[in-house]
Amino acid sequence: MRSIALLASGGDAPGMNACIRAVTRTAINHGAEVWGISNGFQGMVDQQTEQLTSRSVAGILQRGGSVLGAGRCLEFIDPAVQARCVDYLRGAGVEGLIVIGGDGSLRGVRALNALGFSVVGVPGSIDNDVPGTDNSIGADTAINTAVEAIDRLRDTASAHHRAMIVEVMGRHSGYIAYMAAIASGAEMVIVPEHPIELQAVFDEMEAMQQHGKRHFIIVLAEGAKWRAAELTQLINDADNPYDARYTVLGYIQRGGSPSALDRTMATRMGVVAVGALLEGKSNVLVAIRDGMVVPTDLSTFSADETKSDPWLQEVFSVTSS
Amino acid sequence: MRSIALLASGGDAPGMNACIRAVTRTAINHGAEVWGISNGFQGMVDQQTEQLTSRSVAGILQRGGSVLGAGRCLEFIDPAVQARCVDYLRGAGVEGLIVIGGDGSLRGVRALNALGFSVVGVPGSIDNDVPGTDNSIGADTAINTAVEAIDRLRDTASAHHRAMIVEVMGRHSGYIAYMAAIASGAEMVIVPEHPIELQAVFDEMEAMQQHGKRHFIIVLAEGAKWRAAELTQLINDADNPYDARYTVLGYIQRGGSPSALDRTMATRMGVVAVGALLEGKSNVLVAIRDGMVVPTDLSTFSADETKSDPWLQEVFSVTSS
Amino acid sequence: MRSIALLASGGDAPGMNACIRAVTRTAINHGAEVWGISNGFQGMVDQQTEQLTSRSVAGILQRGGSVLGAGRCLEFIDPAVQARCVDYLRGAGVEGLIVIGGDGSLRGVRALNALGFSVVGVPGSIDNDVPGTDNSIGADTAINTAVEAIDRLRDTASAHHRAMIVEVMGRHSGYIAYMAAIASGAEMVIVPEHPIELQAVFDEMEAMQQHGKRHFIIVLAEGAKWRAAELTQLINDADNPYDARYTVLGYIQRGGSPSALDRTMATRMGVVAVGALLEGKSNVLVAIRDGMVVPTDLSTFSADETKSDPWLQEVFSVTSS
Amino acid sequence: MRSIALLASGGDAPGMNACIRAVTRTAINHGAEVWGISNGFQGMVDQQTEQLTSRSVAGILQRGGSVLGAGRCLEFIDPAVQARCVDYLRGAGVEGLIVIGGDGSLRGVRALNALGFSVVGVPGSIDNDVPGTDNSIGADTAINTAVEAIDRLRDTASAHHRAMIVEVMGRHSGYIAYMAAIASGAEMVIVPEHPIELQAVFDEMEAMQQHGKRHFIIVLAEGAKWRAAELTQLINDADNPYDARYTVLGYIQRGGSPSALDRTMATRMGVVAVGALLEGKSNVLVAIRDGMVVPTDLSTFSADETKSDPWLQEVFSVTSS
Repeated sequence: MRSIALLASGGDAPGMNACIRAVTRTAINHGAEVWGISNGFQGMVDQQTEQLTSRSVAGILQRGGSVLGAGRCLEFIDPAVQARCVDYLRGAGVEGLIVIGGDGSLRGVRALNALGFSVVGVPGSIDNDVPGTDNSIGADTAINTAVEAIDRLRDTASAHHRAMIVEVMGRHSGYIAYMAAIASGAEMVIVPEHPIELQAVFDEMEAMQQHGKRHFIIVLAEGAKWRAAELTQLINDADNPYDARYTVLGYIQRGGSPSALDRTMATRMGVVAVGALLEGKSNVLVAIRDGMVVPTDLSTFSADETKSDPWLQEVFSVTSS
Repeated sequence: MRSIALLASGGDAPGMNACIRAVTRTAINHGAEVWGISNGFQGMVDQQTEQLTSRSVAGILQRGGSVLGAGRCLEFIDPAVQARCVDYLRGAGVEGLIVIGGDGSLRGVRALNALGFSVVGVPGSIDNDVPGTDNSIGADTAINTAVEAIDRLRDTASAHHRAMIVEVMGRHSGYIAYMAAIASGAEMVIVPEHPIELQAVFDEMEAMQQHGKRHFIIVLAEGAKWRAAELTQLINDADNPYDARYTVLGYIQRGGSPSALDRTMATRMGVVAVGALLEGKSNVLVAIRDGMVVPTDLSTFSADETKSDPWLQEVFSVTSS
Repeated sequence: MRSIALLASGGDAPGMNACIRAVTRTAINHGAEVWGISNGFQGMVDQQTEQLTSRSVAGILQRGGSVLGAGRCLEFIDPAVQARCVDYLRGAGVEGLIVIGGDGSLRGVRALNALGFSVVGVPGSIDNDVPGTDNSIGADTAINTAVEAIDRLRDTASAHHRAMIVEVMGRHSGYIAYMAAIASGAEMVIVPEHPIELQAVFDEMEAMQQHGKRHFIIVLAEGAKWRAAELTQLINDADNPYDARYTVLGYIQRGGSPSALDRTMATRMGVVAVGALLEGKSNVLVAIRDGMVVPTDLSTFSADETKSDPWLQEVFSVTSS
Repeated sequence: MRSIALLASGGDAPGMNACIRAVTRTAINHGAEVWGISNGFQGMVDQQTEQLTSRSVAGILQRGGSVLGAGRCLEFIDPAVQARCVDYLRGAGVEGLIVIGGDGSLRGVRALNALGFSVVGVPGSIDNDVPGTDNSIGADTAINTAVEAIDRLRDTASAHHRAMIVEVMGRHSGYIAYMAAIASGAEMVIVPEHPIELQAVFDEMEAMQQHGKRHFIIVLAEGAKWRAAELTQLINDADNPYDARYTVLGYIQRGGSPSALDRTMATRMGVVAVGALLEGKSNVLVAIRDGMVVPTDLSTFSADETKSDPWLQEVFSVTSS
């Protein structure tokens, strides 16, 4: 394989640049050229590519975001558009493609593979919601960012006997919320998967007050029943032992310099992705499975597979009080 | 003076513990006892005190919040309550008081002094809105926290061509907003002191888009015309070149380990505050003036004096584009 | 099991407190009492114990070090001393023990088990050199600390065309050095396992200079052929394209607030360790194996088993230039 | 003035890039062109310049180091070389120069001014040893870096009853050492200005041991009597209550993203420096004096003026135990 292309799709995630650097240098070290496609599948449709070199990817390892941009592309769902893209790549001499991104990106991988083009996926998602892999680029950084923020809240919450509501990412998944809550010793976690009644929140506050807790920290996934401002209002309108305030972390979790784990994992995934392409593999995801980084056939798991980490809930509940 | 008391009032601020430690150790090194009053003036009303020792204040220097608690106390406005507090302190052998806090705390300082009790104030406020001093304990930490958050947003904002709205503290003052905007290179700052029309925001976005900027960061003080969620909605409802998202930093700015500057300044203020009391001074604020830490008579400036830093606006506008 | 004891042994590691908190709360939630033994096996010999409660372990999750202390104990190697310890624990009604620590600690686990006492080990070591497990409490934090330090060096190294030598932990193992070098994009890594000639260092510098690199960062494990000061001297005494300076990270890597991963992993390991004891298991290590947290029989792997991560060297060399 | 030039001299310091950005944008906003000179005065000798634009300085505010490089230049001491530089600048239409750097840089400012060329200096030095100003770009960041490092050491030092020696920058000045020691609550500080006997170190250790301190942290300026490794050896060879370990922070203090204070101060200094040049000022240093940023005539203070902050020693000694 003498020429490969590379794009980042969906939301960007810290560590994507480490993967871009690793893919580029590994391919070049194996004698292949590398083309970077800008702004995800949209850039493929619009034919926005530039050649990447060992020098051009220097100094990006520690930077958040994606130097190739990222983003979703509705147009790419159209099979005619997909076919045109394959023609474009082939015409430019490109023989294989690496796609870094979330579960939406895997649909693109499957589609291009179905058209006979060699494609390898790499999981990048701060929500860690990519099916088929135990971890995704960006999740560790996002959790660390949330935990650092909650650490800052604790002392001031204690000084004022406050309830602090911290809204973290997670429209459909409580993964970040649970991990952040366990790691920060929060008093409560509210996620989309487990609906909860307002009265249960009040009861828990009452119980913690009885325990002598000077603060009450709630980690709230953005996809839960209430948004942070709303829940704060509901708590303060009722007669509760803690006065509530809120923080919405928002895109702060998506940004920042990647953690060491995201950098090493993303680098290793990039090396393995190039290896998989060069060995003739296609329609695979470079996944973390059983603690290893392995190319995993997309046909062996469903696009709708959801991760369930039953230990999260148990560990949180047994250690939070 | 053989016995002094110490309290933190109003909102807590990072660095207050460094001041509590310095007051305690300095007084003890000068042969005086130190009594810590819990939860601000309320604790004085409720007679909640405990003796502080060199050992009991060990290990608190680097912690956020206030180990003595803090908070406002409506009851203390009553002159009869104030008189009772003075009787209580005198009865306990306390000869002088140090109050760490914001502008509300200075009213307490004036009131107790008027009753003939020796009181010294130390400015603690993350908003840096204490009259009579150029800096307050906690402001430097709060600004650093906001700047770190905005740094995280830049790369991901660029990857998606986004407008990022970051709501920072400041109900009446744009100080944190301006400092954070200058330090982070934000594209726009919106503060309570300078009303702005929505169309002006849109126009600036259009201008930056013309300049080729891939992102547009707005630092928004919480006391400005709109809250973050509202402004985000207004931007996304109109036809704008950037898609908006928001972050509400909230109490994260009030917490966290204090910066080196807040620790050294708070420590030095604590040393100077004890010195002032021992020299027989009262009704003074330990202020930063002309670059020095000096006890400043409260009668030399108005309780309503507002800080105006005209360079903030000029420096921001000349360097932001 | 109505009463268990807990100690931390060997060098302390960030995350040990998260494990101490999790063990305590899990055991109490299952109806057992928990006794904390101070200063490792030495504290067992000296009978230094105190009861731990849900409240007494509050607020320690985010702190580095070990609230129980740690440390090695030569005296404990003596079988008579071991037998006395078992008598002491039994006399105090303790039915099981959890030991958090490195490979030395596992010898203590094996010894006590041989005497018929129920013991479970939890791996804690910033070097990640505990046999039988893929990860240890503290390693992720140590690597992040090293990476943050190296990130700081890059810009200033470029400004002055410098070689920067960063000495990291690792007397026998290059694990931290390799992980930090991959995650920071260093130009060279020198570890105890792979001896290297001085001329090879010079040649690589010459090659990187030819490549146009403005800086040359070497990550040096402390157990390698040279110490940092020595290698710096050797480089500067010869005729090399980069002027060398050094940093010795030392115990900074052992300290600090634990990373999110170390906190969640340590918490989970603590929950699993108590579960293992309560199920009657003994002589097991709560290990990370195949991506899961599982109690693993100590008889299934050798105390001298060394971890070999062949991908480390390959990934570093293929991506570093 | 239609064209100005800009260079950074001596050691680089975090915040220099914020100043470069501010100078560039302010000058352009006033209608002047800006030329960046690479690698300090050497680049002026070698005529290495490039035009700076508002876009070319985008995204550098938060980066450490200096995008223009920095460094010393022995050659520039020669008056003939200085004259040639002035000819070169005049020939290129440059009418004024801004020099960011330490005390060595001010000699260059004086020399060029003596030749009739308009020059303005801006203080940049992590040691804060520039005469005539109360603060220098980079010092606040360096102190924060040292303090964060020492914070990490405390918990692990306590767990093992250790003496931790932390070597910080400061060949001739104990400023960073004192500020870091006060801000981190160290037990001892050793600086070049105040010689100390080894026995005094031992005595203090003994005293702290009596006080019940579980650790003993020494902040050591690099220009003090001993280097870190040497003092560690001396302590461990004698009979002392604490077992010593050391850390050499080295260039880590010089690097990293600048603190908020360094960014805002450097930005403001850049704005004021351009204003001074445009108003026809020369031979001035943009200094922090009496809490303000003011252009200060170099003839009003001596190049050998040393800063003495007598409060540093007093505040440290009264609060450290």
